[in-house]
Amino acid sequence: MTKDYVVGIDIGGQSVKMGVIDRRANFVARKSFSMAGYGADDTVRFLDDVCKYIVELTANVGLDSIQGVGIGAPDGNYYDGTIVDAVNLPWAKGKIVPLRDHISGKLGLNVTVTNDANAAAIGEMTYGNAIGMKNFIEITLGTGVGSGIVVDGKLVYGHDGFAGELGHTTAVRYNGRKCGCGKTGCLETYASSGGVCQTAREMLEASNEPSVLRQLETITSKCVFEAAVAGDKIAINVFEYTGRILGEKFADFIAFSAPEAIIIFGGVSNAGDLLLNPTKKAMEENVVGLWKGKVKVLRSGLPESDAAILGAGALAW
Amino acid sequence: MTKDYVVGIDIGGQSVKMGVIDRRANFVARKSFSMAGYGADDTVRFLDDVCKYIVELTANVGLDSIQGVGIGAPDGNYYDGTIVDAVNLPWAKGKIVPLRDHISGKLGLNVTVTNDANAAAIGEMTYGNAIGMKNFIEITLGTGVGSGIVVDGKLVYGHDGFAGELGHTTAVRYNGRKCGCGKTGCLETYASSGGVCQTAREMLEASNEPSVLRQLETITSKCVFEAAVAGDKIAINVFEYTGRILGEKFADFIAFSAPEAIIIFGGVSNAGDLLLNPTKKAMEENVVGLWKGKVKVLRSGLPESDAAILGAGALAW
Repeated sequence: MTKDYVVGIDIGGQSVKMGVIDRRANFVARKSFSMAGYGADDTVRFLDDVCKYIVELTANVGLDSIQGVGIGAPDGNYYDGTIVDAVNLPWAKGKIVPLRDHISGKLGLNVTVTNDANAAAIGEMTYGNAIGMKNFIEITLGTGVGSGIVVDGKLVYGHDGFAGELGHTTAVRYNGRKCGCGKTGCLETYASSGGVCQTAREMLEASNEPSVLRQLETITSKCVFEAAVAGDKIAINVFEYTGRILGEKFADFIAFSAPEAIIIFGGVSNAGDLLLNPTKKAMEENVVGLWKGKVKVLRSGLPESDAAILGAGALAW
Repeated sequence: MTKDYVVGIDIGGQSVKMGVIDRRANFVARKSFSMAGYGADDTVRFLDDVCKYIVELTANVGLDSIQGVGIGAPDGNYYDGTIVDAVNLPWAKGKIVPLRDHISGKLGLNVTVTNDANAAAIGEMTYGNAIGMKNFIEITLGTGVGSGIVVDGKLVYGHDGFAGELGHTTAVRYNGRKCGCGKTGCLETYASSGGVCQTAREMLEASNEPSVLRQLETITSKCVFEAAVAGDKIAINVFEYTGRILGEKFADFIAFSAPEAIIIFGGVSNAGDLLLNPTKKAMEENVVGLWKGKVKVLRSGLPESDAAILGAGALAW
């Protein structure tokens, strides 16, 4: 039987998105479910549920027609197919979770794992704004800040398979925010959705400037974005601040791999020019002369909900 | 005629070192000359002198037996064979110098150019402490701070051929030292030989602590090293400070490419454990948990005077 489909799975901090995809990137089935129900003791139940849903989703086309399963997951390791100490996933924090072997053993399918940002980068190369690019960096700005680094047309995995943890490079050297990874000052603590909210709370605290954000019980990065679009000064400053920190780090990343473009993806990137303009400005101010004006900063060309699934699926072909 | 030799050329801030090398890394001829005599207007004279010396050095074996010329030079570009705006070379500052085409055109030899740090990394892979490593970073600590990044067994050149300018990533975010590249706070301004000397001068200025360095008319990084070995407290603190800044950046570099090792090379690295110990300590304190205790920091396994020549020569095979 010809293997006409792959299963792409995007494991995120909030939810899991799954799709059965054909060779032309059409979805023949899809499902998503919340991560909320899985606690520290639910590792096996989570893996078993993923297997169950794979079987359900592929019922129409048949498991025999599946070329393989590609999974993008935080701290997913390409070399051994595990998730290692994913701080944003309660069932994978402080553990080595044998994602590939468990699912592969149970269903008899080839399973390939990488981190969610690498999967997004593969999606971007295949269907998005990095088509034809051989050197670029995909930065995901969501619950966490991840990255997929492409050098000479290939993802950088490094010695141990975990390369590209740019969310955990140091953005603020002294008195930086405490990060879930145990460090302080990580880029993630400023440029993730939670980081944006914390910046908003700190700015509200530090001034008497009127702001619609003061009326909210819970601040989300989406609320901050909507307030900024409506002209709220504090909300605009939040993205200015976030963009400045992001752009300073982008300048460092450029010095590393000299990419043609840095592509931002994920919830926080929906702020668009409100975030991109200060990011580009800070990047240009901080980058070595030879790259000034030469490296593009782009938003992802992929539909947000499908990018990581498509990328994960592409891993399996 | 069989091509049994290559010419390796290491262009540094202070001097040029050249060698005619056989397939077993034996030198059959070598020469070095000072950079001091070449000013901003001497670009062509410099290139012509290099050609003249190549002819002289290969007189015994004959130009016909030369497989090619490999050149490591600051800001040397692998893709087009130029040097672009090398701030530490007066004759190449603010200019694009067509190194490959000039020499190749004049002598009819194949010429390959890369930056001096990349050449050192190739030397390290071929003859030094990175034999068998597929992922490592070579950091050169000399007049400038350069780097050669090896991913999956290959040097990272990036979109434009200039990847790996880690000396110009930001080490100090506010009130950093002014760098020759136009930025402030670059790693190079702290971890180069000049950076070490400036740290020493600043520390002498800021305290009344007795120090043998106070008796010197001109401080060199070698003097600081010798003073530290003799137990001079300020000199020891200079390397503590340098190592801390270096180690903090190494933690970021690891998050990028997950290397098996970071290998330091060049004059400042001769400080050995005086520099390596604080570097490792700061690196371990700042690196993401999954890499703690896992990434080696090594000194180069190459004889300093020959590493870049051997690496440059290896480019030409």
